[in-house]
Amino acid sequence: MDIAHPYLMFLGDVHDQLAAKTAHGIVDWRREWCLGQTRLPGCQADLGLPEMTIAEGVAAGAKTLIVGVANAGGVLPAHWVATIVQAIEAGLDVASGLHVRLGQIPEIREAAAHNGVQLFDVRHNDQTFATGKGTKRSGLRLLTVGTDCSSGKKYTALALERAMRARGLDADFRATGQTGVFISGHGVAIDAVVADFISGAVEWLAPAAAPGHWDLIEGQGSLFHPSFAGVSLGLLHGAQPDAFVVCHEPTRRTMRGVTHALPTIAEVIELTVRCGRLTNPAIRPVGIAINTKALGEAEARALLAELAHEHGLPATDPVRYGVDVLVDRLLADFPESGRV
Amino acid sequence: MDIAHPYLMFLGDVHDQLAAKTAHGIVDWRREWCLGQTRLPGCQADLGLPEMTIAEGVAAGAKTLIVGVANAGGVLPAHWVATIVQAIEAGLDVASGLHVRLGQIPEIREAAAHNGVQLFDVRHNDQTFATGKGTKRSGLRLLTVGTDCSSGKKYTALALERAMRARGLDADFRATGQTGVFISGHGVAIDAVVADFISGAVEWLAPAAAPGHWDLIEGQGSLFHPSFAGVSLGLLHGAQPDAFVVCHEPTRRTMRGVTHALPTIAEVIELTVRCGRLTNPAIRPVGIAINTKALGEAEARALLAELAHEHGLPATDPVRYGVDVLVDRLLADFPESGRV
Repeated sequence: MDIAHPYLMFLGDVHDQLAAKTAHGIVDWRREWCLGQTRLPGCQADLGLPEMTIAEGVAAGAKTLIVGVANAGGVLPAHWVATIVQAIEAGLDVASGLHVRLGQIPEIREAAAHNGVQLFDVRHNDQTFATGKGTKRSGLRLLTVGTDCSSGKKYTALALERAMRARGLDADFRATGQTGVFISGHGVAIDAVVADFISGAVEWLAPAAAPGHWDLIEGQGSLFHPSFAGVSLGLLHGAQPDAFVVCHEPTRRTMRGVTHALPTIAEVIELTVRCGRLTNPAIRPVGIAINTKALGEAEARALLAELAHEHGLPATDPVRYGVDVLVDRLLADFPESGRV
Repeated sequence: MDIAHPYLMFLGDVHDQLAAKTAHGIVDWRREWCLGQTRLPGCQADLGLPEMTIAEGVAAGAKTLIVGVANAGGVLPAHWVATIVQAIEAGLDVASGLHVRLGQIPEIREAAAHNGVQLFDVRHNDQTFATGKGTKRSGLRLLTVGTDCSSGKKYTALALERAMRARGLDADFRATGQTGVFISGHGVAIDAVVADFISGAVEWLAPAAAPGHWDLIEGQGSLFHPSFAGVSLGLLHGAQPDAFVVCHEPTRRTMRGVTHALPTIAEVIELTVRCGRLTNPAIRPVGIAINTKALGEAEARALLAELAHEHGLPATDPVRYGVDVLVDRLLADFPESGRV
C-alpha cells in the first residue's frame, strides 16, 4: 500500500488523547504531511493541528483522510460515516487503522467505487506475496528487535532514520506495523500477513537497494514472546539484517499479555545472531535502546553506562538522549554507508 | 473444521497418480473412512477403491465428497463443477484441497446454500483464534520437527498414532497441514493462519487433555528454513511439546525451494530445545526418523545405528522399520503415558 500525502487527520469524537495515539504518532514523525484535523462535536483528542473542514482540507491540497484513532470494539461509529463519505466525494482516499474494514460499510464502499478513490485498511493485508527466498540482497539493513512487544522498536527505527538523514546518510524507515505504515505511507502490517508469507513480505518491503543504502526495519514482538515469536523470526529472516539494535523497557517484569518473564538483553542478542545467521552470516548487534522513562536522571545514566560496558555496545534512550551514539557505531562498523 | 466421514473420493480427470497424492494419503491412513472413488472419463489416478457414482456413494452412507487432488494452476476445472453440485444436491458436504475456494464458484456456493451442506477449503482458514498464551496445559504432547520441509513429519506423527493405539495408548494425531486435516477430519492448515495467531491456533488444536493423553502434532517446515521458520517457531511454542522427534532426509543437499544447506540433526535438536523451553522447560528429543528410501539395506541400517549412537536416541525409518523403537523410548521417558 502506498498512501498518498499530505494527510487530513480525522479524529471522530473519541473521548481522550490515548484513543488518538496512532494519529499523534503520525504528527510526531510526519508533521509536514499533516495539513489539519477534522473533529466531530465532543472530540476530546487534539493533535494541535489547524481545524479544517473536509472542503478546507481538500483546498489545502490533502490527498488522504486518515482515520488514525482507536475506539472501543474496533468498529466504526455510524455517525462517523457521513464525514468519511463526504471526504470520498471530495476526492480524498481514506486510510484507516480500525479493525473493521472500510469496505465493509456499504455507504463507504459504494462512495469509493463511484468516486474512484482508494480505501486502505492498514491492519489488514490482501496483497499477494511470494514465499521468502533468503537470498542475500544488495544494500544494508538494520532491524530493531526487542525483549518484548512495545519496547521502543518503532520509535528507535524512526529516530535512526531522522538522525541518519540529518547527517546526509541514505536511509529509509520500513514499516511493519499499522502506525508505521501511516508514518511512511508505505509498508505492511506483518502480523496480518498469512503465516507462510511472513519472510516473503519482508523481502518485498526491503528489496535490493544501492550498496550503501540503509533500510531501517521496524521490528515486531520478540523471539521470546510465546504469542508472537513466529512473526519475529520470519521478520528476522526476511529482513536479513546486517545490524540490529535491541530495545528494552527495564521496569517491565512480565511480557505483554502473558505471564512469562522477559529475556535478558544478552539472550536476545545471542538468539538473534544465532537465527539471523541463516540469511545473513554477518549479522551483528550495534546498540541497545532503553526506555528509561521510569528512571531518574542519575539512575538512567548509570543503567546505560552499565549496559554499554556489559555488552560492549553503545546504549541510549532514544527519547531522552537521541540515537547519535548508535549512528556513530553504525558508521564505524559500516564505512560503506552511503550518502544521498 | 470437522469434516464428517465416511468419505467419497472425487478424483476428477487428473492425468497421473501424483496429482492424487493427497487422496492416496487419506486412503493410506484412513482406509476405513473411504467408501469409494468417483472419477471422470480419462482419469489416470486410481486409489484402488470401488468405483461409485454420487448416488451409490450416498446410498453407501458417504457424508463428504473429498476433492483430494492437485491440478495445474490450482483452479477447479469447469467440467468438474457438475459432479460437485450433484454431490451437494444429494446432501453431501464437500471438502477441497485446491487453492481456489469452493465458495468462489457461484454454482457451488448457491447449491451449498440451497441444500444446507458445508463446504471445507482445507488450504484456507477463516476461523478466529485467540493469540497464544504459552500457559502450560495438562496432557502430553509430541511434535515432529524437521531439518527441512517434506522430511516425513506428517508420516512419522501418523505412524506414531497407529503404533501407540495398537499398544492401547491414548494418542491422537493433530493435523497442521491440508492432507493431515483430511486424514483426521479435523485440524488447521497452520501456514494459512494469519501470522499473529500461529501459536494460538496450535493451542486451540492441542488443548488441555487428560494427564496421560498424547497429542501427536504434525510439524511444518523447519526452524532453519528461510521461507517458513516463523511458522515452525509459532508451531513449536503453541505445541509446547514434552517430546519431539527429528525427521530427516539424508540425501537432500539444499532445503526445498531455496539454495540453503540443510542444518545438521544436532543443530535442529539444540535450537528446538533452546526455543521450545519458552513454553515447556522440560522439552526433550525422543528419537530420530530418517527417510532411507535412497539407501540400500546395509547402508540404511548402518546410518540409523550411527545416528542412534551419535545422539543417544532411537533412530528408525518409519516406513521401512516402523516406529516401535520411538514408542519404547516414549514409554520409558514418560511412564505417566495413559491407556484408553
